[in-house]
Amino acid sequence: MPQTTARQALLRLAQTHDLSGVRERLLPMADTLAADLLALEQGLANAIDKDEHTVAAAAAHLMAAGGKRVRPVLCLLVAKAFPPGEPPPSIVLLAQVAELIHNATLMHDDVIDLGDTRRDRPTARFVFGNGASVLGGDLLLVQAIGLIEAAGVPDLLGSMLNVLRRMIAAESLQLENRYRTDVTIEDYFEVSEGKTASLFEWAVEAGARAVGATDDVVAQLIRFGHHTGVAFQLLDDLLDLEHDPAAIGKNVLQDVQGGTLTAPILLALAEEPDLARRVADAAKDAPRDHAGEEHAAASLDDRLAADLVDAVHRTGARDATRTLIAQHTARALAALSVLPDSPARDALASVAKGMAERAR
Amino acid sequence: MPQTTARQALLRLAQTHDLSGVRERLLPMADTLAADLLALEQGLANAIDKDEHTVAAAAAHLMAAGGKRVRPVLCLLVAKAFPPGEPPPSIVLLAQVAELIHNATLMHDDVIDLGDTRRDRPTARFVFGNGASVLGGDLLLVQAIGLIEAAGVPDLLGSMLNVLRRMIAAESLQLENRYRTDVTIEDYFEVSEGKTASLFEWAVEAGARAVGATDDVVAQLIRFGHHTGVAFQLLDDLLDLEHDPAAIGKNVLQDVQGGTLTAPILLALAEEPDLARRVADAAKDAPRDHAGEEHAAASLDDRLAADLVDAVHRTGARDATRTLIAQHTARALAALSVLPDSPARDALASVAKGMAERAR
Repeated sequence: MPQTTARQALLRLAQTHDLSGVRERLLPMADTLAADLLALEQGLANAIDKDEHTVAAAAAHLMAAGGKRVRPVLCLLVAKAFPPGEPPPSIVLLAQVAELIHNATLMHDDVIDLGDTRRDRPTARFVFGNGASVLGGDLLLVQAIGLIEAAGVPDLLGSMLNVLRRMIAAESLQLENRYRTDVTIEDYFEVSEGKTASLFEWAVEAGARAVGATDDVVAQLIRFGHHTGVAFQLLDDLLDLEHDPAAIGKNVLQDVQGGTLTAPILLALAEEPDLARRVADAAKDAPRDHAGEEHAAASLDDRLAADLVDAVHRTGARDATRTLIAQHTARALAALSVLPDSPARDALASVAKGMAERAR
Repeated sequence: MPQTTARQALLRLAQTHDLSGVRERLLPMADTLAADLLALEQGLANAIDKDEHTVAAAAAHLMAAGGKRVRPVLCLLVAKAFPPGEPPPSIVLLAQVAELIHNATLMHDDVIDLGDTRRDRPTARFVFGNGASVLGGDLLLVQAIGLIEAAGVPDLLGSMLNVLRRMIAAESLQLENRYRTDVTIEDYFEVSEGKTASLFEWAVEAGARAVGATDDVVAQLIRFGHHTGVAFQLLDDLLDLEHDPAAIGKNVLQDVQGGTLTAPILLALAEEPDLARRVADAAKDAPRDHAGEEHAAASLDDRLAADLVDAVHRTGARDATRTLIAQHTARALAALSVLPDSPARDALASVAKGMAERAR
């Protein structure tokens, strides 16, 4: 029952990210997406043969943990939004690329951050070691580039290399921001645009170029991908605040040490310099090796964690983040006007609208 | 004085690796290689702008430490060995690729092995941290793929992706061999062929394809690259034995822990099971994190280290390694017969002969 399986996959996709509203809106697309989503999962399993060696097993460990597959879905939907709505089979290769690159960055991020859990499972790094995680990321990258080559759509290798350069520059900025609590919202957007939005842009570009869209149309759709990616990251930040204060306190400590403060926290700290100083001191005091190799297991003390959560409310940082999400969602929706009316375009709009609704 | 500078670079190249004989033999090529070697260094500096961000600075830190540039030299010499001996300017891009990929693997290796020194300097990992070293390797890989694309020679991207897959598989085998002292010489060759010979093969293939060599000629030259690479790795292993016994003891402990035993040591241990057991026990006892993250600072005790050096002599492991080098050098030289007589072909032969002489 491939159709049923794919429909379930789609529902799970919407559910995992808890995008209320999106779930129902994506349903009309379930049948047309079904075959492609199955082909996507099959392709991902083929790209990484977990029985080949330890490094492949480490990469497969992460890929099998699921994830939202939001980048491949955007790629597929964009390609289907052009008449007659039947993209060439190579579209599934490009959808795979977006997911493989995303997972490659996760494997390297886990080594950089010494992350122990991801998607509610132990990280590949934790199970197979740092070495297998570094090499697993390399393998995913190599397989992704091979699929771009195999798809044979002009310009997509060059644009992917640019995406990777932007990702590396953003990660580098994070390294430079370690231990700083005075990171500006401009720094934040520079990192988000480089780390998250860039790959959303590529997924959308790939979908459009695979069906021969003109450069003008591609450029406008890239804006859709850009703002969707930024909104996605902001929403992720906002959902981080739904943990208990102790967990938030621990996250913030690690975020300061890793240079990865979330938008609501940095907006709150910008308004409360004394609190920022207390958080920075706590992060400095927590044990960590030279060159930032070890994350502290320690947490902010309860008082400081509670003050932080309080500050996010008091300063209006949560509302400010919501406003940013609404703005980027609106820009994403506006960019969609370049597409003719179709179920695929509606589904793309649903993804953006769902994020704005979830943030409310 | 570009010619003088390049001639000096060439002499340094031969000298750094202490290839007696090669130095004089490469001299006739110095003037024709001069411009290309200068362009190579300039291109490498352009590919990685150290002022761009921390990650680029980390990558530049390694690249600036020098190294033998043996892969780019092989690429350039092969291209010059085809009449009229004047390859297109894109050859320098391909020569850069070989060096960038080599350095990318070093940056990731240093994270995997937690290496603190390389080329007599602190590693990028040690100076800039694990994160910058992982991302620095990624950056070098991205820039290398961009240069393959820019050179526009058919088939070279696909063959590079295959090289990278072989490298990853070889590194994975090393991970699987951690803590084992019963590694076979077949395992050793599988790792050497994947980690070292594969990129030598590509450098030679790139030089030949850039000047339009036929598939048959390319295939035979790849054999030259293959055997030169294997001999290069074996010679590196042999030179490791020229340290004092205490240093050798420390290296062996780390090699057992990292799954990277050298040929003379594993040949000796294969003949002396009791000694192998003592070494394995010492490696197990040395402190190390879960999933093999930490290298021991400890060393084999003096008695065990001395017994090990003694065993390498007693078992004839050193001589056996020399014989292997001679065999691979001879096969490399035989493969060169596909080329017409030229100063470039003589220089290629010198590289192989120099390794055999150095091993004696």
